[in-house]
Amino acid sequence: MPADHASRRAALRGLLADRSLDALLVTDLLNIRYLTGFTGSNAALVVSTDDDADESRTLICTDGRYLSQVAEQVPDLHAEIARASAGHLVGTAGPGPHRSWGFESHVVTVDDRAKWDTLDAAISFVAAPGLVEQLRMVKDEYEIDLLRQACGAADRALADLIDVGGLRPGRTEKEVARDLEWRMFEHGADGISFETIVAAGVNSAVPHHRPTGAVLASGDFVKFDFGAQIGGYHSDMTRTYVLDRAAEWQRDVYDVVLRAQRAGREALAPGIECAAVDAAARSIIAAAGHAELFLHGLGHGVGLEIHEAPGIGAAAPGTLVAGAAVTVEPGVYFPGRGGVRIEDTLVVREQTPELLTLTAKTLTVV
Amino acid sequence: MPADHASRRAALRGLLADRSLDALLVTDLLNIRYLTGFTGSNAALVVSTDDDADESRTLICTDGRYLSQVAEQVPDLHAEIARASAGHLVGTAGPGPHRSWGFESHVVTVDDRAKWDTLDAAISFVAAPGLVEQLRMVKDEYEIDLLRQACGAADRALADLIDVGGLRPGRTEKEVARDLEWRMFEHGADGISFETIVAAGVNSAVPHHRPTGAVLASGDFVKFDFGAQIGGYHSDMTRTYVLDRAAEWQRDVYDVVLRAQRAGREALAPGIECAAVDAAARSIIAAAGHAELFLHGLGHGVGLEIHEAPGIGAAAPGTLVAGAAVTVEPGVYFPGRGGVRIEDTLVVREQTPELLTLTAKTLTVV
Repeated sequence: MPADHASRRAALRGLLADRSLDALLVTDLLNIRYLTGFTGSNAALVVSTDDDADESRTLICTDGRYLSQVAEQVPDLHAEIARASAGHLVGTAGPGPHRSWGFESHVVTVDDRAKWDTLDAAISFVAAPGLVEQLRMVKDEYEIDLLRQACGAADRALADLIDVGGLRPGRTEKEVARDLEWRMFEHGADGISFETIVAAGVNSAVPHHRPTGAVLASGDFVKFDFGAQIGGYHSDMTRTYVLDRAAEWQRDVYDVVLRAQRAGREALAPGIECAAVDAAARSIIAAAGHAELFLHGLGHGVGLEIHEAPGIGAAAPGTLVAGAAVTVEPGVYFPGRGGVRIEDTLVVREQTPELLTLTAKTLTVV
Repeated sequence: MPADHASRRAALRGLLADRSLDALLVTDLLNIRYLTGFTGSNAALVVSTDDDADESRTLICTDGRYLSQVAEQVPDLHAEIARASAGHLVGTAGPGPHRSWGFESHVVTVDDRAKWDTLDAAISFVAAPGLVEQLRMVKDEYEIDLLRQACGAADRALADLIDVGGLRPGRTEKEVARDLEWRMFEHGADGISFETIVAAGVNSAVPHHRPTGAVLASGDFVKFDFGAQIGGYHSDMTRTYVLDRAAEWQRDVYDVVLRAQRAGREALAPGIECAAVDAAARSIIAAAGHAELFLHGLGHGVGLEIHEAPGIGAAAPGTLVAGAAVTVEPGVYFPGRGGVRIEDTLVVREQTPELLTLTAKTLTVV
């Protein structure tokens, strides 16, 4: 199934018409990728609200390095070639009747915005932040398939690592992290989603620990938070294991986090407030007396970015919609002792949410 | 040798005084890292121009996740804790006599800038782009040492790859790229500098090819462009090999690029115009009749970013200064046939430039 960029641009035109904008000047590269498929490192796109069937008034601009790439990736739009891509599109608009262009004020810099005013185009610029991000929040089946593939590569890499005994006392956090990353590439990952977290023993109590030369030891919690990128889409999963033997306190905290994570997953449904999903998980941790040890939000949207809308936290605004891809990742961290986080990536569906990260979550002693 | 952040802040105060600014609000995270050593993902810094010996009016702000990290990494400055770090510093300034704060208009978004005006602080904001980047252009010995380490990890990884026969017909570009990256980690890299380029056969004619499943074959050019990151500093090196046997045309083009690259390296000196360095290399390629096949600039600065000031191209402004770390990377690309690029990272010195990437550049048939 190919990505349907034309439908995405059509949806964007609906948002522009609602705001009485004549066009949107898109400068965020991921938003351009979403709307056109173009993956180069320099581009701007102007999507005209009223356009003909051939979209002849919707233009992409990139520089000469990407001459053949833009023709191949974006065969359905006219491409301009210029180094200062956004400025060129503004300049190309030329004189004529005054038009109102939205721009991505949440990513455009003060300097870039000021430059456009020197180009003498008959354009009024209107701050229009987050419109494409609003569309990106609802994943189409093409996107969900890529997320599924990315999550699958991460699942298989972790399974392989454990199967071959790659998680064992004596290895360092860094060694285990590199080993896991290598296996994701073997399973088709184009890249890693973010710097892989492997946190052993007391380090597992640090929510976003960077792997060090710390040596894994018997009795340690070992927390993995990692993901694979495929086709631009990111997976995100956390699992926490115990090496050799689990102490009573480890079983207790694991059980609390597992129950909280299940409650969070089960709360995912169209129409629920994002803050209510957080509360569903957080209340279980609070009931166990650990409220102050769950230091972060419950989750976040995931897609072309590892963190995108919607946020799922105690103060998060908005409600979930079907097609949103989100993480659910409660954690409890005892400073100086150890911590547990369990995280899945899921898609909100009309019925039960679809689980994309399939690695088992029962307490596993390796 | 530790990094001397206080000296860097003192140098910045000199630039602020020249511009009659009372302070600079620094929001670029790499600039904050450069000025303080802080590596978290959320921070703002206000450097007051007239400060006391304890720098009590220079403040860093980050959020609660980094409470212990900021205390450890920035023991010499007062740290505020707030999620909206820049807004908090603006708000903290409070009422009183009106002050003039520079801000990084080249990175601050239109939306963020607009927010500061709602905070009722007695501050006039003045666009002051690129001040810290100007300081960063001249590397101190601490930085050069990290660049040297990063280049060394890349040199050793490539040597290992070739020693063990990892570069051979039958492997895919992706396999070779992963293998090389793995070896950089084994030699101490914290990360890769950018997506490793391995481009074989006709793909070597694409300046920034992404590794594919293409299988290396006897007689291919194989172009490597890659680097290691250590302590935040990036190495950057390109080498082009031939598999098994080199054809006459391959020897010819290699020789041209090698001579151009040497001319570029030898032109590096304090006071020379950046455009003249480009011309020194480009004229050799032009004399060989390939002017139109050298599609990009000759090089760029490298440091906390893989691409930073100064640019070295035909239209690049400015002159080189001692302590600048730059790449020299001419290339000649025959579309549909193959191409050669040779790139080093060097430090401009008062005398001969210091070569940091030490892998041999004579034509090597593997």
